[in-house]
Amino acid sequence: MTFDQRPAVCVLGTGLIGGSLLRAAVAAGYPAFGYNRSDSGALAARRDGFDVSTDLSAVLRRAAEADALLVLAVPMPAVRQLLGEIAVLAPRCPLTDVVSIKRPVLDAVREHGVAAQFVGGHPMTGTAESGWSATDPELFRDAVWAVGVDEGTQVQPWLRVVRLALDCGSVVVPVLADEHDQAVARISHLPHVLAEALAAAGAAGGDLAIGLAAGSFRDGTRVAGTAPDLVRAICEPNATALEQVLDETIAALVTTREALRADGSLGDVVEAGYRGRTAYEQRERWEIRGIVPGTDDWLGELATAGRRGGVLRAL
Amino acid sequence: MTFDQRPAVCVLGTGLIGGSLLRAAVAAGYPAFGYNRSDSGALAARRDGFDVSTDLSAVLRRAAEADALLVLAVPMPAVRQLLGEIAVLAPRCPLTDVVSIKRPVLDAVREHGVAAQFVGGHPMTGTAESGWSATDPELFRDAVWAVGVDEGTQVQPWLRVVRLALDCGSVVVPVLADEHDQAVARISHLPHVLAEALAAAGAAGGDLAIGLAAGSFRDGTRVAGTAPDLVRAICEPNATALEQVLDETIAALVTTREALRADGSLGDVVEAGYRGRTAYEQRERWEIRGIVPGTDDWLGELATAGRRGGVLRAL
Repeated sequence: MTFDQRPAVCVLGTGLIGGSLLRAAVAAGYPAFGYNRSDSGALAARRDGFDVSTDLSAVLRRAAEADALLVLAVPMPAVRQLLGEIAVLAPRCPLTDVVSIKRPVLDAVREHGVAAQFVGGHPMTGTAESGWSATDPELFRDAVWAVGVDEGTQVQPWLRVVRLALDCGSVVVPVLADEHDQAVARISHLPHVLAEALAAAGAAGGDLAIGLAAGSFRDGTRVAGTAPDLVRAICEPNATALEQVLDETIAALVTTREALRADGSLGDVVEAGYRGRTAYEQRERWEIRGIVPGTDDWLGELATAGRRGGVLRAL
Repeated sequence: MTFDQRPAVCVLGTGLIGGSLLRAAVAAGYPAFGYNRSDSGALAARRDGFDVSTDLSAVLRRAAEADALLVLAVPMPAVRQLLGEIAVLAPRCPLTDVVSIKRPVLDAVREHGVAAQFVGGHPMTGTAESGWSATDPELFRDAVWAVGVDEGTQVQPWLRVVRLALDCGSVVVPVLADEHDQAVARISHLPHVLAEALAAAGAAGGDLAIGLAAGSFRDGTRVAGTAPDLVRAICEPNATALEQVLDETIAALVTTREALRADGSLGDVVEAGYRGRTAYEQRERWEIRGIVPGTDDWLGELATAGRRGGVLRAL
């Protein structure tokens, strides 16, 4: 495939993830353009040579003409407003998103009547920074990009989303929206909550505690440096799944506290944690092969493979 | 000061911290030697050109002759046995330690009658690795090294410990044993417990959750990769202080869970965590000046300065 055969991409929201995606898509040879709500963000992108406008209507009309893949790259609270405009101005464009939860986006897309061409997405990457100034075309290199395989997913938009993810340097994990949301509650949203609680507990120890803090505190609180509004926008739409896993974690910590009180030991949490970390360090991303998009039960087979740790590395 | 004026150092236990200290002391020009319980550890050190023996009695007699600064560099459970030997073979040597808690060491030193020349120490550094193969003479560079200023501390051994810490590239925070232990419960032991709980919660999500895990899970669980026995040896001797701060943290997480349940919001934990992380990132290590060791209330003045975030950068 030569560069001029790449289909157009239209990124809606050029913050850390969307802006990085715009850069990565351009670097991979896609004709790509975008929209950003704030003048300053759009201006910063244009100064770096990217085609970003604050005129949403104009951007969506252009996307409709170009049959561009629309990428929703705004926090969950801003998704519905964008969908309202898309439903009017570009309802037949293939559509994906990079939002950190999948069920609420899928529901919103269905409510707005633009589900036919929709395929959910979630690149598992980011930094504590935000905004255009933090964007990086290499942000997706060697990352995992979750791509939806929910019932009703169409082959053509699915292929476009997967190809874009692969062209940005990621591997693709096929996921069902609900299973994705339960998984990220454990490995993305719970880490945020625990980092916040740890940072607060450290600071409550005053200058001495903060002054003595070293590697374990630094790494354990890193994501607590994320802007509070962004943390809320990431975690709160997944409240139900997060509440469940937080409940589980509180129970484990209560057991630990009781063990400390009873005999000064940490109990089982140390072995369980070591096993968990080891599983993470030793995970193997086996390659999913032989499932042909569009054949019988391709979506179910992909969901099963993703659930078992499989990834797509090529189409 | 020329190299041959440095006084001798004897490191008891040449694992990650003790072995790195032996390397750093030699690099800084100290005549330094050591003891290690295991043949394999001592052999590995000797192969790298360091003077390490498994004969504790011989090492302690040599230390007594050389008036070496003894450094206890074994996990807390092994400290008492070493002190029993020191009390017999080298009771007049200046004595310090690099154990992760200070009150139990201080109590043990007093019980063994070797407190006169004792000054507690705790370099706030480390990795998830252990053993001689993980040692690094630069491990202490730009680290914080807590040094005891408890009642009864003598000037001469205190100066030797502080000079060694500074010569290894660290800054020194003067601390009282109990205040140290309360602080490290917050910034070292709680991070271990939360990392273990997070790693266990992630792994409970199976291959999909582990497969999707990215930066926040990686950093939040890093110290859960530490060998379980070592985590217990670090944290359990501080059970009382750890139980208190764990109690506080559980209460904060319960509040978070209730907020999620009530209205899907994370409540106050996000702002509190952001403030805590910001305090950590913006901490200023102001230099303690003008306190002359041995003058009236020098220990009290140093403890106050350390409590307020002050550090010693030179003698």
